[in-house]
Amino acid sequence: MRILLKVAYDGSEYHGWQYQEGIDTVEGQIQSALYKLIGQEVKITGASRTDAGVHALGNVAVFDSESGIPPEKYSYALNNILPSDIRIMESKSVDFDFNPRFEAKNKTYEYHIYNDVVLLPTRRLYAYHYNGILNIDEMNAAAKILLGEHDFSSFASVHAQTDNYVRTIYSCYVEAVGKEVIITVNGNGFLYNMVRIIAGSLLEVGRGKLKSSEIQTIMDQMDRTKGGPTLPPEGLVLKEINY
Amino acid sequence: MRILLKVAYDGSEYHGWQYQEGIDTVEGQIQSALYKLIGQEVKITGASRTDAGVHALGNVAVFDSESGIPPEKYSYALNNILPSDIRIMESKSVDFDFNPRFEAKNKTYEYHIYNDVVLLPTRRLYAYHYNGILNIDEMNAAAKILLGEHDFSSFASVHAQTDNYVRTIYSCYVEAVGKEVIITVNGNGFLYNMVRIIAGSLLEVGRGKLKSSEIQTIMDQMDRTKGGPTLPPEGLVLKEINY
Repeated sequence: MRILLKVAYDGSEYHGWQYQEGIDTVEGQIQSALYKLIGQEVKITGASRTDAGVHALGNVAVFDSESGIPPEKYSYALNNILPSDIRIMESKSVDFDFNPRFEAKNKTYEYHIYNDVVLLPTRRLYAYHYNGILNIDEMNAAAKILLGEHDFSSFASVHAQTDNYVRTIYSCYVEAVGKEVIITVNGNGFLYNMVRIIAGSLLEVGRGKLKSSEIQTIMDQMDRTKGGPTLPPEGLVLKEINY
Repeated sequence: MRILLKVAYDGSEYHGWQYQEGIDTVEGQIQSALYKLIGQEVKITGASRTDAGVHALGNVAVFDSESGIPPEKYSYALNNILPSDIRIMESKSVDFDFNPRFEAKNKTYEYHIYNDVVLLPTRRLYAYHYNGILNIDEMNAAAKILLGEHDFSSFASVHAQTDNYVRTIYSCYVEAVGKEVIITVNGNGFLYNMVRIIAGSLLEVGRGKLKSSEIQTIMDQMDRTKGGPTLPPEGLVLKEINY
């Protein structure tokens, strides 16, 4: 039976999602918890390989098991074993050939910028600190340029392992919520570091280092060196994956 | 010159506010940062000795220094030395005899209860987890009974070091914000563990273990064994001290 897990985590203490021998990762923790629970080594397939320090509210993973545990009981059982910075929000059975990575219709990420003189200690692990005036309207004007199907080479890490840099952004907007500026982006898929580079580019627009219209020029150049900086991982959270 | 510091901290990693030889405390960190900054051992007087794991947005402390650093520059200078889970939000000069503890007019605390099936990993250090239905109206009815001047012996730790259990609560209310239930209480002073015991008692009311009217009976008995449980420190935050 194929079981789907909806996984939330605080990525601060982990070297990212993906299993690596001898290194503490979210997938490694879930694999080890599953081994304790069902006494069986299982292969986990995750939807998003988030980087070290990146958080998730709704990453998705599947595994196959012949254990008699009812699918919806895995969340409770695994949460009793997992450390408290990883939680299984939901578990259920899915079709035997369901692939969470390839069947994802769209994903939503948020990037949080703490925009005040002093970064609040309780937000230090969940937001990037920027102290200065940000023009939210200009950031939104720039965000609109990203909408639709484009080659996002200028907004992908040079270490992206792909030949196809075309992705579709369905929505991208910026809002001030209390002292945080939140960039929300939804798309059919994201290249390596893409959301963090989009956030870095919109930040440059917000602080007046780039005009919003320059985002179009940057995109057209299809050259990573033209895009904004890659903002650090702690501000990023994978909110939701839709199927 | 007497300098006032407004201090925010994530209390997760500290053994509370108060300096203790060889133990990592918030006051100890500030003392050591001041020593690095001005090369002088200073005595710090804090307004609130928060417990291990308790957070603060606005604790207040003073110290005396003859260094030539302008009072308002201490925040920036100390933040360059302090770990990122302690921040000086503001610094300024105050009268030479200003005592932040005795001159506080009132203090505001919040207690956060995460009220859903699974505790979100990114909230685990900042909220107490309770999974069950809470009757917010009943909690507010109970909170109203606490308003005014009373003997709060039933809501103070037996380890409270005082002869006077009379305090005045100016406001106390409960609200649901997203998946959290927040208890906000403002008063002229608080006994040891008082907010955590009030939160524990209101939680008992919310889950139907106590009637709201029983809070009056508990208060009248002036007996700690009659009050609700002391909820854990992570849900508590000292929001503000007013002078």
